[in-house]
Amino acid sequence: MPAANELDGLRVVLVAARNPLNIGAAARAMSNFGFLHLCVVNPYDAAFREARSAVGAAALLASAEEYKTLADAVADCTLVVGTTAVRHRELQHPLRRLEYGARLIRKQLGSGRVALLFGSEKFGLSNAALSHCHWLMRIPTCEGNISMNLGQAVAVCLYELVRDAKAARPAEKVKRANSAEMERITAKLLEAMRGSGYLDRRPIADVEERMRRLVRRLNLPSRDAVVWLGILRQIVWKLRSGKPPAG
Amino acid sequence: MPAANELDGLRVVLVAARNPLNIGAAARAMSNFGFLHLCVVNPYDAAFREARSAVGAAALLASAEEYKTLADAVADCTLVVGTTAVRHRELQHPLRRLEYGARLIRKQLGSGRVALLFGSEKFGLSNAALSHCHWLMRIPTCEGNISMNLGQAVAVCLYELVRDAKAARPAEKVKRANSAEMERITAKLLEAMRGSGYLDRRPIADVEERMRRLVRRLNLPSRDAVVWLGILRQIVWKLRSGKPPAG
Repeated sequence: MPAANELDGLRVVLVAARNPLNIGAAARAMSNFGFLHLCVVNPYDAAFREARSAVGAAALLASAEEYKTLADAVADCTLVVGTTAVRHRELQHPLRRLEYGARLIRKQLGSGRVALLFGSEKFGLSNAALSHCHWLMRIPTCEGNISMNLGQAVAVCLYELVRDAKAARPAEKVKRANSAEMERITAKLLEAMRGSGYLDRRPIADVEERMRRLVRRLNLPSRDAVVWLGILRQIVWKLRSGKPPAG
Repeated sequence: MPAANELDGLRVVLVAARNPLNIGAAARAMSNFGFLHLCVVNPYDAAFREARSAVGAAALLASAEEYKTLADAVADCTLVVGTTAVRHRELQHPLRRLEYGARLIRKQLGSGRVALLFGSEKFGLSNAALSHCHWLMRIPTCEGNISMNLGQAVAVCLYELVRDAKAARPAEKVKRANSAEMERITAKLLEAMRGSGYLDRRPIADVEERMRRLVRRLNLPSRDAVVWLGILRQIVWKLRSGKPPAG
């Protein structure tokens, strides 16, 4: 997740939003992902600040800045990005997929303020609003239903802005069994194989090495190794017909 | 975006959802991102199928499967993943960030059905529901407000599942000028340099090659090349003091 002071530079600008619940939902998503500055231009319903959908984001919604014109809302921004569901309409702006657009926005946030514009639920951003934009961004939705709910679109865009590409790689936090533990399991497994008569019926060449590799490939967490070893010991004990487990 | 038949293998399972509008919003997000199979387990409000929030997804919502038990809902799935906002509570399951979890889910979808579980708005997934899960996944929300709206959480998870990592790199869709066009520009540029007396004042060794490389580095879009060539022709024409442009 980027540093908080970088996220500080983003203005989420809702232009002519119709449903106060969507404005509240946008505020909630901003709060979820660490953004602070909500601007509202010409909302349809003046009572949007009471929207109950802003769960955990009441303060953010209360401090939203309200503007009569989009020009005023974006006056201090060095980059203005519009969102659109439209893909094929003749657009006067470069249209970027969210993944790439978000990367450009993150870069710009290092040096200046960025406005991210969302249009009304019914009509999207007007041509007049689009004329304030440097470029446009679209969420990669399906042809069959390209138009997202406003609150959901805000959530997805902000998620992409804070998402950590590196987090797609696994964090190796589980403590794995060490060689000594694996060796104990291997030994017990061999005992169990011998004790069960398995190796008499199906002799295996280099059986120790094969089983050692087999056990290593399990890649057991340390805590699981303890359990497996216990189970094997029990089996071996049973196979020895009642002699108590050793080693 | 993955192939549609792969997305077919995902079941979005809403367990004990309270608000029909959220079920409708989940359906809308599924439709936006190309998922088809919605399962609803013990919904609070039986009338969820009429939710008006399922814009463009009425058919999907109408065909949602309703189950009395989670076990029935996930019976045919080879991987069951729970979503949670909780980070620090003692969890009995591996907890993965969305970016990594989505990668694992995509991989599994190649060979089997996957259930993605979302709990109730108020309580999340119960311990009983969690016990059906192979592992858990969390959206990387801020400490200050970790809990997302259900419809927004579904949208973000499904977005991450279909997102194209490669799309973070710019798509080269602009038609670039070809070599012939670049060569014409180079020639005109050289004419202009010579015609302006530039090369008399600052002689350049291997000037043709240097300028050819210089022009190539512009990496001009084809439509821009036309414009640049026009400008250069005009300059050269002017430098020749009124002789009409040729070539």
